[in-house]
Amino acid sequence: MDISERLAQQIRFIVEIDRLKTICRRTLLVDRSRLENSAEHSWHMAVMAVLLHEYAADRGVDVLRVVKMALVHDIVEIDAGDTYCYDQAAHADKADREQRAAERLFGLLPEDQGRELRELWDEFEAMATPAARFAAALDRLQPLLNNYHTGGVQWQKHGVTADRVMGRMAPMRAGSETLWEYAVGVIRRAVEEGKLEG
Amino acid sequence: MDISERLAQQIRFIVEIDRLKTICRRTLLVDRSRLENSAEHSWHMAVMAVLLHEYAADRGVDVLRVVKMALVHDIVEIDAGDTYCYDQAAHADKADREQRAAERLFGLLPEDQGRELRELWDEFEAMATPAARFAAALDRLQPLLNNYHTGGVQWQKHGVTADRVMGRMAPMRAGSETLWEYAVGVIRRAVEEGKLEG
Repeated sequence: MDISERLAQQIRFIVEIDRLKTICRRTLLVDRSRLENSAEHSWHMAVMAVLLHEYAADRGVDVLRVVKMALVHDIVEIDAGDTYCYDQAAHADKADREQRAAERLFGLLPEDQGRELRELWDEFEAMATPAARFAAALDRLQPLLNNYHTGGVQWQKHGVTADRVMGRMAPMRAGSETLWEYAVGVIRRAVEEGKLEG
Repeated sequence: MDISERLAQQIRFIVEIDRLKTICRRTLLVDRSRLENSAEHSWHMAVMAVLLHEYAADRGVDVLRVVKMALVHDIVEIDAGDTYCYDQAAHADKADREQRAAERLFGLLPEDQGRELRELWDEFEAMATPAARFAAALDRLQPLLNNYHTGGVQWQKHGVTADRVMGRMAPMRAGSETLWEYAVGVIRRAVEEGKLEG
């Protein structure tokens, strides 16, 4: 097979990231059949970017950029694992683990594309641009919806209370006032309905 | 919770499509642990669109449009199920089942967005535009990679031979000459290595 080294590198990366489908999250699927994985979450978040960008704080947000962030934002978990957002101990060395993962994984790509994906991921992590803040809002809203629609069993299982969920959702506000207000409503309703400890 | 009917419709659709994560395909994950589902496949295909669009037959292809197609191209399977590409009997009523599914599912959205997604899906199915032809090429390449990297066990299990895989890949050529040639090389190598019956 006579293919360019560039295409070979791209294919190696594409085959490698198949492993994101095996990285388990703490969110249940809506049908409660099993936990969600990070590839599915990334797909869901990308669809949400397409459908909800009208609510971004910056109405002119670059939708393709947000979608790309959604698609790649969890790829580092292939090496670093998923860190549960309410697990403070695991968060201590999360940054180190993820930096090493980003270097190895994005380093599989041709240099220009590895740099592009690394920059997208850095931008997402820093929440420093309108696109990153909107992506961060979607990254929080997606599991909130699944938790609410599965009766909050994962919140109950992990002893998560409403104030912690509210704290987790707080950065949404900078990305989308409308989606933040919607999230606050979901949290209130979850407490009223006994799905989440108030 | 006082939200607009528009946002309510969007959220209903977003919650409904969670079910794409439960639609099983015939492709194994690269680690062979289980079959892939259609949400994971859509994510993988969307990442491929971002990384491989330089090989599209139309070099100026609209990347966001291709990515959107990748994200939504299998949503109809939520109602219609996944139809195995080498199952001729199931293909007889596939079109009918999928048309009804598209009406119900995209009909959950606000009218403008339902129409947009329906048009994207129709365009993808018809393979009538450069974006659709490139998306179709990626839709074929992704499972080829997974089948090759899992030793072709699914091909063997379902009695699929090289000429049928070649036929399945043939539409790739109109979407990307480079990726088509790459696919032909993978098929040849799979036969040489005994992973696929020649």
